[in-house]
Amino acid sequence: MTIFNELPAHVWPRNAVRQEDGVVTIAGVPLPEIAEEYGTPVFVIDEDDFRSRCQDMARAFGNPGNVHYASKAFLSKTVARWVDEEGLSLDVASIGELRIALAAEFPAARITAHGNNKSVDFLRACVKEGVGHIVLDSEQELELLDFVAAAEGICQEVLIRVKPGIEAHTHEFIATSHEDQKFGFSLASGSAFRAAAAATNAENLTLIGLHCHVGSQVFEATGFTLAAERVLELYSKIHDELGVDLPMLDLGGGYGIAYTADEEPLNVDEVAHDLLSAVAKTAAELGIDAPVVLVEPGRAIAGPAGVTLYEVGTVKDVTVDEKTTRRYLSVDGGMSDNIRPALYGSEYDARLISRFSEGDEIATRVVGSHCESGDILVRDAEFPNDIATGDYLALAATGAYCYAMSSRYNAFTRPAVVSVRAGRSRQMLRRETIEDILSLED
Amino acid sequence: MTIFNELPAHVWPRNAVRQEDGVVTIAGVPLPEIAEEYGTPVFVIDEDDFRSRCQDMARAFGNPGNVHYASKAFLSKTVARWVDEEGLSLDVASIGELRIALAAEFPAARITAHGNNKSVDFLRACVKEGVGHIVLDSEQELELLDFVAAAEGICQEVLIRVKPGIEAHTHEFIATSHEDQKFGFSLASGSAFRAAAAATNAENLTLIGLHCHVGSQVFEATGFTLAAERVLELYSKIHDELGVDLPMLDLGGGYGIAYTADEEPLNVDEVAHDLLSAVAKTAAELGIDAPVVLVEPGRAIAGPAGVTLYEVGTVKDVTVDEKTTRRYLSVDGGMSDNIRPALYGSEYDARLISRFSEGDEIATRVVGSHCESGDILVRDAEFPNDIATGDYLALAATGAYCYAMSSRYNAFTRPAVVSVRAGRSRQMLRRETIEDILSLED
Repeated sequence: MTIFNELPAHVWPRNAVRQEDGVVTIAGVPLPEIAEEYGTPVFVIDEDDFRSRCQDMARAFGNPGNVHYASKAFLSKTVARWVDEEGLSLDVASIGELRIALAAEFPAARITAHGNNKSVDFLRACVKEGVGHIVLDSEQELELLDFVAAAEGICQEVLIRVKPGIEAHTHEFIATSHEDQKFGFSLASGSAFRAAAAATNAENLTLIGLHCHVGSQVFEATGFTLAAERVLELYSKIHDELGVDLPMLDLGGGYGIAYTADEEPLNVDEVAHDLLSAVAKTAAELGIDAPVVLVEPGRAIAGPAGVTLYEVGTVKDVTVDEKTTRRYLSVDGGMSDNIRPALYGSEYDARLISRFSEGDEIATRVVGSHCESGDILVRDAEFPNDIATGDYLALAATGAYCYAMSSRYNAFTRPAVVSVRAGRSRQMLRRETIEDILSLED
Repeated sequence: MTIFNELPAHVWPRNAVRQEDGVVTIAGVPLPEIAEEYGTPVFVIDEDDFRSRCQDMARAFGNPGNVHYASKAFLSKTVARWVDEEGLSLDVASIGELRIALAAEFPAARITAHGNNKSVDFLRACVKEGVGHIVLDSEQELELLDFVAAAEGICQEVLIRVKPGIEAHTHEFIATSHEDQKFGFSLASGSAFRAAAAATNAENLTLIGLHCHVGSQVFEATGFTLAAERVLELYSKIHDELGVDLPMLDLGGGYGIAYTADEEPLNVDEVAHDLLSAVAKTAAELGIDAPVVLVEPGRAIAGPAGVTLYEVGTVKDVTVDEKTTRRYLSVDGGMSDNIRPALYGSEYDARLISRFSEGDEIATRVVGSHCESGDILVRDAEFPNDIATGDYLALAATGAYCYAMSSRYNAFTRPAVVSVRAGRSRQMLRRETIEDILSLED
């Protein structure tokens, strides 16, 4: 089963290599050494992979500042610094994400604030700190922000989030463009236009564009271009009826990545080309200036850069039916460090990283150590039958929405996060301890 | 819509009352006061409700020590102390849960250790600290524990977890009795008997019983009694072939609670009576001594004792189709403090707790503040249409598996947990701060 020894290049970090001795390295650092030094489970982030995806996006969309890294995928001070150094902008969706960015001295002017229910504190902090753009999500918020900006004596640049009514093909839980959802103003009902008019009239707001988001894990340009075409019709109406030319169009995130060998990631260059062409063409047809296109990738930058290392513990063969045995490999993490398989049915590519495998194929399930039978990391795999207790197993493409959504279920402590670059590892986030948990006790 | 002002007694904490002025109190403490004093979101635990459910379980199963509170539902030092004071035993499923219990000076002898992949550190800590029982989950673990116990010069009391092959009617993710799962030894294949023989022969282990768990949110005795009958056949075989009488039978947890007004909680007294009778009868038929029955409720003790208070933020009416408008009420928490609706499709009972409501019915969805459209707390409700920004809304029956599974998604900080009793509130766990998050940065 030599195929198991391969690392699908479109799933694994760009600097991941299996050496001749079978050990997997990332950026020249052997993963077993990281497991030994920092313990398991541990997240490993390929810094150059992360940066190169920032650069790819910047090139594809014409300017690094047009690309907003979506913090929610994975944020730490180190990540904020990388994003800053690559010249990208940054999206935050809470006062906590804003504070982490500011703690890393990320320039506030390149930050955009999101959220369906921004608190007064969050809005006030954005205005005071000089956050570049705030994406308005409701009439209430529009009025509140106008009031907050007035109190600070500032005219705040804003975008308006609209629901273009495009349903990208994606998982139910992460679709966000349909009408029956919490985000944005309806294009169809006219509420988006009314909000644009209100923002234009508001004394302390400057409307600079509209925002829409078609979904997550999108693999084709079609959803984005359809949404852009619809939203641009509103730009035309705003031009005609309000006499305002909006300079920016934010088309959100959703750029799909490959989690498994048989998936193909979205081709960023192709999609960017199609999208920018469609925007230029539609704007010309409508007789308006083409706005600058902004995009908000999170997963597409952070996801493929990260892997999670686990140590294999209990190995158990279970009789499923008369013909089938399934091997259960328990690892020392689980749904606390990766809730996505349980939450979304997500699949992952798992490989031995400490040595070559020579075994024959056996139906295998990778499970965590939590006291819950749904604590599954890889549900249906065919793995070699020589994986044993003490082996190190890694799941690829865990850089986004794993650490960010991690919990302390069963009083598990969050893993460390380690970055690797040019043959060296560096701890970005230390492992939590039981003292961290107990520090909340009164 | 006066029905909305009622608090279904079988869902809400036992000491929850709506006063004549419309304010909801628990144990005499007005919930709006807690929201003001501790901020929102905040978990409120009715201490006497929690304790009374410990007492109910103890009475129903004949002895408080026979009832093991399952830490995974919700554990803090305060909770461990309550469980200790009520005389119950305690289940832990990780070294972290063990350490919290020991930090609260919970007597180790009344602790039982669980898990499909216990680490060597966890097993060693259990043995050293004098943990009463360890539930063995695999052959590897049996050998490892025998070795660890030998090194410490201790003979460790153990149970063996078996899969009785009973499928209780429950949600797929939380069913745990079927064969194709990570926990336990198969009864059908004979591996459970072989494990019992191995444990009996192991020099540093004393086998005191078998353990099984039929599932979660079980509402009838049938699943438990069927499992007990099957497992007792193995007691008989162990008696006959190994010459050992096992004194204990652990039938696990799964005692269902009502999350919504139309659900009925499991009747603990009835189920205990049926279960204990079935065990006595089956043992008599098999000609063996009836073992003492142990049970492991977590949710059934902690769940109904807790509510989560939120402040309503954005109120938005969305056109679903030509005939339907849905009102979206955004609250200041969400999937970070309650992942269960997104993870299991769980439903909750939500009520205004700051005043009476007089509005007409409108289709309503309660959503959180996270940057994700799946961030839904109550999917399909009919609420009065007078709920407004600034109102306090509470979700009932959030005492179990909410705080325990909480995350820092979107850099949200964990809510405070406050206990109430006899007219007074007391902070059990402080609210996290951004400094807690930043303290992990290097």
